[in-house]
Amino acid sequence: MTNILQQIECPADLRKLSDRQVRQLAAEIRRYMIDTVSRTGGHLAPNLGVVELTIAIHLALDCPRDKVIWDVGHQSYVHKLLTGRRGAFSSLRQQGGISGFPRPEESPFDCFATGHSSTSISAGLGMARARDLAGDDYTVLAVIGDGSFASGMAFEAMNDAGHATTRLIVILNDNEMSISRSVGGLAGYLGSVRANPWRRQFRSAVQQAVLRIPVIGRALRALGHSIKRSIKSLLLQGMLFEELGFMYIGPIDGHNVRTIRRAIEDARQAGGPVLIHVITRKGLGYAPAEANPAKFHGTGPFDIRTGEAAPDERKSFTSHFSDFMVRAAADDDRIAAITAAMADGTGLRAFSQRFPERFFDVGIAEQHAVTMAAGLAAGGCRPVVAVYSTFLQRAYDQVLHDVAIENLPVVFAIDRAGIVGEDGYTHQGAFDVAFMRHIPGMTVMSPKDEAELYSMMQAALQHPGPCAVRYPRSAAMGVGVQYPAEPVEIGRAEVIRDGRHCAIFALGPMVCRAIEASRILSARGVSCAVVNARFVKPLDTSILMQYASSTGMIITCEDAALPGGLGSAVVEALAHAGMSDVRTVRLGIPDRFIEHGRRDDILTQLGLDGRGIATAVVRALSERADAKGSGGGIHVGTV
Amino acid sequence: MTNILQQIECPADLRKLSDRQVRQLAAEIRRYMIDTVSRTGGHLAPNLGVVELTIAIHLALDCPRDKVIWDVGHQSYVHKLLTGRRGAFSSLRQQGGISGFPRPEESPFDCFATGHSSTSISAGLGMARARDLAGDDYTVLAVIGDGSFASGMAFEAMNDAGHATTRLIVILNDNEMSISRSVGGLAGYLGSVRANPWRRQFRSAVQQAVLRIPVIGRALRALGHSIKRSIKSLLLQGMLFEELGFMYIGPIDGHNVRTIRRAIEDARQAGGPVLIHVITRKGLGYAPAEANPAKFHGTGPFDIRTGEAAPDERKSFTSHFSDFMVRAAADDDRIAAITAAMADGTGLRAFSQRFPERFFDVGIAEQHAVTMAAGLAAGGCRPVVAVYSTFLQRAYDQVLHDVAIENLPVVFAIDRAGIVGEDGYTHQGAFDVAFMRHIPGMTVMSPKDEAELYSMMQAALQHPGPCAVRYPRSAAMGVGVQYPAEPVEIGRAEVIRDGRHCAIFALGPMVCRAIEASRILSARGVSCAVVNARFVKPLDTSILMQYASSTGMIITCEDAALPGGLGSAVVEALAHAGMSDVRTVRLGIPDRFIEHGRRDDILTQLGLDGRGIATAVVRALSERADAKGSGGGIHVGTV
Repeated sequence: MTNILQQIECPADLRKLSDRQVRQLAAEIRRYMIDTVSRTGGHLAPNLGVVELTIAIHLALDCPRDKVIWDVGHQSYVHKLLTGRRGAFSSLRQQGGISGFPRPEESPFDCFATGHSSTSISAGLGMARARDLAGDDYTVLAVIGDGSFASGMAFEAMNDAGHATTRLIVILNDNEMSISRSVGGLAGYLGSVRANPWRRQFRSAVQQAVLRIPVIGRALRALGHSIKRSIKSLLLQGMLFEELGFMYIGPIDGHNVRTIRRAIEDARQAGGPVLIHVITRKGLGYAPAEANPAKFHGTGPFDIRTGEAAPDERKSFTSHFSDFMVRAAADDDRIAAITAAMADGTGLRAFSQRFPERFFDVGIAEQHAVTMAAGLAAGGCRPVVAVYSTFLQRAYDQVLHDVAIENLPVVFAIDRAGIVGEDGYTHQGAFDVAFMRHIPGMTVMSPKDEAELYSMMQAALQHPGPCAVRYPRSAAMGVGVQYPAEPVEIGRAEVIRDGRHCAIFALGPMVCRAIEASRILSARGVSCAVVNARFVKPLDTSILMQYASSTGMIITCEDAALPGGLGSAVVEALAHAGMSDVRTVRLGIPDRFIEHGRRDDILTQLGLDGRGIATAVVRALSERADAKGSGGGIHVGTV
Repeated sequence: MTNILQQIECPADLRKLSDRQVRQLAAEIRRYMIDTVSRTGGHLAPNLGVVELTIAIHLALDCPRDKVIWDVGHQSYVHKLLTGRRGAFSSLRQQGGISGFPRPEESPFDCFATGHSSTSISAGLGMARARDLAGDDYTVLAVIGDGSFASGMAFEAMNDAGHATTRLIVILNDNEMSISRSVGGLAGYLGSVRANPWRRQFRSAVQQAVLRIPVIGRALRALGHSIKRSIKSLLLQGMLFEELGFMYIGPIDGHNVRTIRRAIEDARQAGGPVLIHVITRKGLGYAPAEANPAKFHGTGPFDIRTGEAAPDERKSFTSHFSDFMVRAAADDDRIAAITAAMADGTGLRAFSQRFPERFFDVGIAEQHAVTMAAGLAAGGCRPVVAVYSTFLQRAYDQVLHDVAIENLPVVFAIDRAGIVGEDGYTHQGAFDVAFMRHIPGMTVMSPKDEAELYSMMQAALQHPGPCAVRYPRSAAMGVGVQYPAEPVEIGRAEVIRDGRHCAIFALGPMVCRAIEASRILSARGVSCAVVNARFVKPLDTSILMQYASSTGMIITCEDAALPGGLGSAVVEALAHAGMSDVRTVRLGIPDRFIEHGRRDDILTQLGLDGRGIATAVVRALSERADAKGSGGGIHVGTV
């Protein structure tokens, strides 16, 4: 067999292929993606599900003139392979390599950056309106999964687009999965549309019958065309969408290139907003992914033959959180757990199996998740919302307005806080400290290890107001846990090592790196205290003032955005106390979006490893020494 | 006529009334609310629309055992009058008086605090689930308007509730208005349900017909009960809700107490999630409000006879923004304007009339508004999103993820920034500076007067990345405007008065107060510089360092939350520059939620008026003098 994929430099090349060659291309793409992702890790199952869909889109459209927006964007690998990035594909998700998500900087074929769910219809509608205002006529098409479709933002966009006459095509890629199985009423509706061939029969039977009923016939004639449309929508399948104002095409086979291509061409002719409902199978073409699409949604490297990943050597923070929740809920039946389509990712799967009646997966709906949790708390439960840092951004207002204003005891278990790694700039958990810290009454903490995670969760569950516990996407420290754990005292930092020349205030996963820095410094004669800050809010100002007075130099260290972060809290507190004359150095995530790469590599590049921290301390000590015109007895040198 | 309202101390008293007395009560309530709000200002039209609905709810339920959640909450006046707050009602929205929104601290009848739109179904579902887990059996009922219902969060909640079996009643209060007229596909759907008595006839005719069609009959028998339900939902009005899993009752007359009461009682019996669709008329019973419900949605004091408010003596920032947008859009046809159901409040009404094709009111859907604007920007437009500070919280993720990551040139015109006043803690615009400042690439500015508003808008529209211009809910300074205005230089502060002893960095509306403080101080021999900061980000560090060096004391002054705000940016910058030995004082909104009251009164109480600022400066100078053991030549005394 010739290698068809090698011949595709741009989408136009697809038009030269016969149907048989298109089928072969699909097979080659699947093989190539499986091979690559088995080495790089990535979102495999979603991409295996959209091979034919992507080919059909690029056959029907003329990109980059026409615009395709990939909702969430983790299903854009096939699109990347067909738009000039086949050669770079082996660098997927690696530092300096291509992103796992659409990026306008990467290619003109990526017209809008995505990463978070349910933005594509809004963005598409905006682009379509801009097109109309400019008097242009290209096609704008948004591809959105059924899980993302259930998120409120998608509904807002459908609602706006539905009453407009703007030409916009939305492809609903319906694979019955978001990341795990879709939940909610909409999923039930889509299921019924999918499942009932009978329904199709029914609708034409009813349609015929209705036109024969005298009273209806009269009414139709009296009320004219608009009512005809309303009857039609009442009777047709897809009416949920038609009620919202969309023309509906489907459901159609998402693995038949010809059918999809024809549907898109029909939709282009139709004008106005059109929804094409496409049924696909996540993971199609790779048996382990078909069998377990949730596991292969996002995966690390794995063995192609078996589908097995190398076992994690060390247990993750997520896994410890998972254990804690099951233990705590066994002791306290007020504890409930809430997730937004992330039961596996957040480690709540075990809880859901043990306590199904207290487990609520609301789908991709972070806003509702948080306010529903506020309702649970108002009703006497102790809800724990487990969510990735980057996705909690969606519920900022709900945290502030529905939880914090009434000081409701909701616990936020913020997973993947800090640098996340390969998923890149849309997924870094850089901002939770900054957006939680200014919320009145909020407690924000981060554990240095899994034992402290237990102690913090314990404290959070006893606290009468809202608490956030943030922890990274990484292995825990291997120190072991005890249950029940001694709750940490709210607002109390922990002195790990004393020191005379300066003190590092480190947050969560930065504590071990600060200890390493302190050891390096110690070897160079610098006596550097290490304080496990534990709390960003309330800040332990007592220990801070003590070290500010005794050393005159405070270094803060956090895997969070610098503006408004822990370091900001520290300089605010020093300023408030009138402690001028204290030198401060704030280390953390700088004020820019951070690209993809390995978490540890990125932290090192940001100077957030032991050596980097030590170097920053040495530089600051040298500057102070220069300023004072003396070394102050410390020989700093270089690290 | 006896005064019935006087006899209602708690909802149980309603049960003693005859139908005639209930009608009289409704009339008395209307009269009392019109009278009070004409003096205090408040949300009149929404409350006039729900008099019968509220009476019916309290007749059908047993509160506070049963729980009622008022979405948005501005329609809770009748509820307050019936639940023991008649006497306090004249203090509505005044400092120390009762709130214009439900507040659990105020009454056990207020089970959940609301203020922002579309939270009630989520909160209600959480409370209902907590009830079930506790083995209790009270009723939970959420009242939500059709405008709020179209917001994504409500859809997320409906979607979750719809697939659950939890007993929950949602009353859809459908008055065809959110704040101005409802927009979007859902509004069209509700309109068709409301408007077609024909539709009701139709559905029963079709229902009969279907059962007579042989092929359907067979299918029904074969497929059993679940399909019967699906046919039923297909045919019944309200199917949009039934498709989502809700039992649907309605539409019913929202001004008929008996009908509503019966519907609620039916819903209680039904079990599972039930939606009652109630049609009400906003403003009912007060002719000026019926004629112009948008004007009487939220109003200041007015003349009861005429419905006219006292004319504003000075033109507001909003009004100047309104003028600017029309002028700028006439010059640049790439400018588009987006609002989320706030065309009047944000001043975009004039733009919408002049440039309807470039105006997009997306309904109460801030998330979609922002990402749709990102799409417009990606398509070559220059979109301006006009939104209240407190509501922009809903779109924090969209600002960060959809606008800032790709550095799209979207302008955020943030109205009602800072202390808002009578609407209280759910509506203060305290957090926008803090949640915008840590977003990479964001420009955040605030004008000292209307001329600078023009200059900042001009600069924002020319800037290649996202910009936020924040301004208060208040009269402008009366300095006049020029168009076209000279754009301000991005990142450049303005020295208003020079000074030797200290320097105030003031933001937006704090500039005039800082000038006043400087005059007060000057009379006491203190030479205090005043700098109009203009930009929170990028901060003008050059002017900052200059005054830090020359005076050694920087006072920051902002009508924004202190943690993470302008003051925080200043202490971060000083720390970064190694400028220890500079005393800083940060004045702003402290780290707590701020109650309702007059804007100026609140600012004064927070020390954010000229005298308060001067006092803070004097205190800081005294402390410095004490610390240095000398007055440094300044005689500070008290202010």
